[in-house]
Amino acid sequence: MKANPFDSREFRNALGSFATGVTIITTTANDGTQVGLTANSFNSVSLEPPLVLWSLAKNAGSVPVFEQAEHWNVHILSLEQEALSNQFASRGAEKFANVELETGITDAPLISNCATRLQCRNAFQYDGGDHIIFVGEVLAFDTTDKAPLAFVGGQYALTTRKPYEGVRLSGSDNLTAHYNENLLGYLLGRAHFQMLFNLKDSLAAHQLSELEFYVLSILGIQSELTLEQLNKHLTHLNLQLTLDDLKHLFERKLIAFESKQQLIQMTYDGRQASIAHIATAKSVEESVKAQLGDGELQALKLLLKKVIKLTDPGIPDLWSEEEDACA
Amino acid sequence: MKANPFDSREFRNALGSFATGVTIITTTANDGTQVGLTANSFNSVSLEPPLVLWSLAKNAGSVPVFEQAEHWNVHILSLEQEALSNQFASRGAEKFANVELETGITDAPLISNCATRLQCRNAFQYDGGDHIIFVGEVLAFDTTDKAPLAFVGGQYALTTRKPYEGVRLSGSDNLTAHYNENLLGYLLGRAHFQMLFNLKDSLAAHQLSELEFYVLSILGIQSELTLEQLNKHLTHLNLQLTLDDLKHLFERKLIAFESKQQLIQMTYDGRQASIAHIATAKSVEESVKAQLGDGELQALKLLLKKVIKLTDPGIPDLWSEEEDACA
Repeated sequence: MKANPFDSREFRNALGSFATGVTIITTTANDGTQVGLTANSFNSVSLEPPLVLWSLAKNAGSVPVFEQAEHWNVHILSLEQEALSNQFASRGAEKFANVELETGITDAPLISNCATRLQCRNAFQYDGGDHIIFVGEVLAFDTTDKAPLAFVGGQYALTTRKPYEGVRLSGSDNLTAHYNENLLGYLLGRAHFQMLFNLKDSLAAHQLSELEFYVLSILGIQSELTLEQLNKHLTHLNLQLTLDDLKHLFERKLIAFESKQQLIQMTYDGRQASIAHIATAKSVEESVKAQLGDGELQALKLLLKKVIKLTDPGIPDLWSEEEDACA
Repeated sequence: MKANPFDSREFRNALGSFATGVTIITTTANDGTQVGLTANSFNSVSLEPPLVLWSLAKNAGSVPVFEQAEHWNVHILSLEQEALSNQFASRGAEKFANVELETGITDAPLISNCATRLQCRNAFQYDGGDHIIFVGEVLAFDTTDKAPLAFVGGQYALTTRKPYEGVRLSGSDNLTAHYNENLLGYLLGRAHFQMLFNLKDSLAAHQLSELEFYVLSILGIQSELTLEQLNKHLTHLNLQLTLDDLKHLFERKLIAFESKQQLIQMTYDGRQASIAHIATAKSVEESVKAQLGDGELQALKLLLKKVIKLTDPGIPDLWSEEEDACA
């Protein structure tokens, strides 16, 4: 950590460590043209009167329009609106192309499906170096519980709320054990096993073992495989399919066997059992999503994908269409 | 989504959907008193000249000090500084108690270990309704790569960056399969199995099976258990320990057996093998942390704990000291 002589890029990077949301600010010019831009320089100022602010570069083309505008709207974007943010951040783009608009209380464009919207009167303008600070009085607002889009370190981000009391799995303070509940391996294992545990009844109802479910899932993606190829996909699960296992699946008509090329395929019954069980898995996930929140679920999935990328020991790509038939 | 008649609490909640970082602003009064407060109303304004702003309630006790101050410092807080944020947000607290300070280029207090620090000249003050907007010229700054603390919806938050290109596990676009790489169950399973896969060599080096490692881990926390009690802890892992497994561990002197009360204990050798393997697990985790970043790892662990809480089928608390001896 050292004090820097002034460098504009380094200064910008330093400011980037302050997380922000992402907004789109819109107004309508005197000639009726709709104007809009993406800004993360927004912040709240006052509760009574209700004031918010944002700042705009003095060399921006839209400065004259905003200086003269009577009203503008602030749209705090939701996680789903990253593309919209990019669209309004692009110079010269057809910003309002395919954007769903609603009628607000002023003539400023009001964009649909945002996390929060603030309809403002253009109250004050203050000098801010190479920017103008616009302060608006909020005349009307509406809000949703949509997860917000964030921006940090020059990249879009997801946020995960830290509950006031933290999250503790154990009732005791004895976390000094070598193996403790804060180890990533423990947490991944326990979360995985608990998800499986919730699916135990569904597997039992479809008379499937865990191994059999994995086999049917793989055959649902790669339509025909040899036993050796199947086992290649099972290696990292610490599972291997034997001829006896295969025989058992065959007798229950869940798989078919093409004896000449030794290829295993899923039958109609196998597909139905697999689909029914995956539907249960999805309903468990829906219940997790309902309690955790969509934004947090998306953050979890993104982080798991990053960990999977980082720890991949070279697992064959299940979804690849170029399965090596001679493996 | 409906337009609201004005309600101050609802307005505050609506503004909360805009994510922010957390800062501490400090200055020194004319009488030498150090003054500081927590603010999330910070934002950057201008690059040339370098200007930033934040706003302060007009009824705050520190208003006269900041109005007269020649300088103030902005500290953008890191994830580790939640307690510091609370300390400076508390009215009447000894705000600078136990706070490590450094000497800056002005007399404003400069707090150590922040994500970023901006040493500012108190440049302009603007009216902002019930707040004053302070605009500062940044005279010096320093920054680190510490993960930033965020604030959203009235709670502290962690951020997870969304990479520009997203994270895709599969090379193919064929994600229409029922079982696909976006299912939470798949991601948890794959991440878990990959972590285990990375530990396979370590288990082999210590001649431990996965089951044996779990048994030693449990005995490392609960010092003596019956076979039945051990198996209660293994149920959700879909594993059960047999008498043969026990015999095998006993012959290798990894466990001892107290025959009167039928209690199983870990031996010195067992503890050593377990500790050595956990050290490997920790080094794998360190390597994930080095690549993923500490902030993202903390976000992942927090989210996994939330999912574990939500999906807990009633797993016995491994860390509880009140193990039921008659189970």
